[in-house]
Amino acid sequence: MAEVVAIKRAPEGPVVSTLENGILRITLARPPANTLSIAAMESLQAELDRARDDSAVRVIVLAAASDKVFCAGHDLKEMNARRTDADKGKAFFEETFAICSRLMQSIVRHPKPVVAEVDGIATAAGCQLVASCDLAIASDQATFGVNGINVGLFCTTPGVALVRGLKPKHAMEMLLTGEMVDASTAKDFGLVNRVVPREYLTQIVTKYAQTIASKSPLTLKIGKEAFYAQAEMGLTEAYEYASRVMVENMLARDAEEGIDAFIGKRDPKWTGE
Amino acid sequence: MAEVVAIKRAPEGPVVSTLENGILRITLARPPANTLSIAAMESLQAELDRARDDSAVRVIVLAAASDKVFCAGHDLKEMNARRTDADKGKAFFEETFAICSRLMQSIVRHPKPVVAEVDGIATAAGCQLVASCDLAIASDQATFGVNGINVGLFCTTPGVALVRGLKPKHAMEMLLTGEMVDASTAKDFGLVNRVVPREYLTQIVTKYAQTIASKSPLTLKIGKEAFYAQAEMGLTEAYEYASRVMVENMLARDAEEGIDAFIGKRDPKWTGE
Amino acid sequence: MAEVVAIKRAPEGPVVSTLENGILRITLARPPANTLSIAAMESLQAELDRARDDSAVRVIVLAAASDKVFCAGHDLKEMNARRTDADKGKAFFEETFAICSRLMQSIVRHPKPVVAEVDGIATAAGCQLVASCDLAIASDQATFGVNGINVGLFCTTPGVALVRGLKPKHAMEMLLTGEMVDASTAKDFGLVNRVVPREYLTQIVTKYAQTIASKSPLTLKIGKEAFYAQAEMGLTEAYEYASRVMVENMLARDAEEGIDAFIGKRDPKWTGE
Repeated sequence: MAEVVAIKRAPEGPVVSTLENGILRITLARPPANTLSIAAMESLQAELDRARDDSAVRVIVLAAASDKVFCAGHDLKEMNARRTDADKGKAFFEETFAICSRLMQSIVRHPKPVVAEVDGIATAAGCQLVASCDLAIASDQATFGVNGINVGLFCTTPGVALVRGLKPKHAMEMLLTGEMVDASTAKDFGLVNRVVPREYLTQIVTKYAQTIASKSPLTLKIGKEAFYAQAEMGLTEAYEYASRVMVENMLARDAEEGIDAFIGKRDPKWTGE
Repeated sequence: MAEVVAIKRAPEGPVVSTLENGILRITLARPPANTLSIAAMESLQAELDRARDDSAVRVIVLAAASDKVFCAGHDLKEMNARRTDADKGKAFFEETFAICSRLMQSIVRHPKPVVAEVDGIATAAGCQLVASCDLAIASDQATFGVNGINVGLFCTTPGVALVRGLKPKHAMEMLLTGEMVDASTAKDFGLVNRVVPREYLTQIVTKYAQTIASKSPLTLKIGKEAFYAQAEMGLTEAYEYASRVMVENMLARDAEEGIDAFIGKRDPKWTGE
Repeated sequence: MAEVVAIKRAPEGPVVSTLENGILRITLARPPANTLSIAAMESLQAELDRARDDSAVRVIVLAAASDKVFCAGHDLKEMNARRTDADKGKAFFEETFAICSRLMQSIVRHPKPVVAEVDGIATAAGCQLVASCDLAIASDQATFGVNGINVGLFCTTPGVALVRGLKPKHAMEMLLTGEMVDASTAKDFGLVNRVVPREYLTQIVTKYAQTIASKSPLTLKIGKEAFYAQAEMGLTEAYEYASRVMVENMLARDAEEGIDAFIGKRDPKWTGE
């Protein structure tokens, strides 16, 4: 990997990001609750879009600039203010959920692995962000909830991410009761991969991201895309598709190099081709 | 919630039910094994149908009048007796499984959350009942099995509920071996949400149901329906659908009230609109 | 069950198998890593095909002749050697993944239950074999990985089996990092059903297989096929299909016998009809 120095890409605003050693660290920085206002979602989307074809970015870490709140979901004040619009806010709400749903799918469909680094509270669309990432590591102080039900707004879009990652009874327990679960329960539920002490969170996530950043970026791209695509198919179709992907992957330069290196007991050198 | 006094709705028969504080408690009461005879299934179906549009019912608890057996599944004696029919029982078996499958889907499709309160043995279609509920709380003395394989009748319809809630290897372990699992294993498998001491079971379930009963019934209805609907869609379609549901939910009176109350730091008053 | 004496069916070659008490034990025997060369996959496929209609086979156990390596996946040397082909190996790779994908689906679609008995390392397509079996019991010394990413070849086809058995974040953790997980973690992930001490592994698997072998083979066949078929359907369609299967199963001789025996408190005698 080329970069040693951290490059600040988005120095201000609701989202801050730095690039170091192939790891793009996108930090939600909209105190106090890092809510997903339209502006915050658009900044996050822009960062993801920019990273898509940037070969310097190997892995994305999604973090927050607070250990109190990772992300509290949508900006309810911003939304409520639009109830005085001529259409009672309908167009604005449609825009909000369209932007949000596109954002969540952009994480799933992103060619680079996305790892959530979660400390503090992750609620509603904030919890959906965590569920939408490929991997998630949480501080032992992190808590999770989809508590829209408490304000009369069921977390239906977060439920899209939850039901694909958690068992239905666990997702429903969170959605129907609106209660928070602690980090350990979130791990049991499959919402996060690991729970680590708060003081080591960033260090452990960075090490974990470095492990993934050391792989062939082409192979990560091929594999991640195929993983989520085949998951939606029937078994026969999934195997036909996945077999084609394996052949394509075998014929790529990086697989030839990787297998050669393995047989020759040396380290591979990825060209990303 | 209006009701303080318990109202007995179905005082006798295979199913007894009471309504208190918005919680409809449906109790299987067909000793000794609470088997799902045609009559028992029809009584249960009738209770669920009645509750559908009854605004006094916020949450449904499905329990049994025994701590030995929650429900032992179909009434095998009733079924076997029909083997002397001209068609060897075929029409009766078709009726049995049609009624049963409709009943299980009625729970999933019911506009009100359904919580299973399980003590004692839950086997075959009895285990399927638990798997079909949105949530389940079990006594530490509860045991679960899909043991039709032991009598030459694979629990294929229970498997429909199981494979949607449990990991396939866990479902297959229960289905192929016919062995019972204890409450703690059922929790690990995701078949039940919580395991509590037998003596506190009803108390804890009631408290849990009250938490859910305090939410907007309209929001629960919108959310539950959308949850299971989107679970069957591909990701893109699921997000399109869920986004539309969120907008509809935002425009409902209860979401406006709930968000207003949240911003104003007061308790919401649901109108169910 | 008729057989008491073990019958060696495939005495040599990459796969050895014995039949005893209705349990067909297929052993990968291609030291040192039991890799899935074309020849090994074809032998395994032939054994599975032969067992399909052999009424003497009630249950299949898939094991390995080594406690160091259960199966290390594809034979990368065999594959790499074909890069000098005129088509750079394309046709050979296509053949490899077609044979492999057919093999994995043959396990899922096999009319007899297949139990993996895993000791040592199971990686890539070796891990996929375990994930593809109906049930899996592992030694406490077993380890699991889908580490193709380390050689530039994402384990996309193993991912087909993984995403159907594990939660996506657990599958992705294994696929993206390429790291091994121990037997206990594999159990948490739902990749294996049980972890037992190495010295008792075969004994416990055999006992477990005998439990299943004592069931009606017809009922096992009907049930296993329906289980995986309905898992791919929507809820309504799944219940319609499963209800038809239940009626068919009820009308079979073995269900009549099994239910009669249950009501009469005697042991059933299966005829497999």
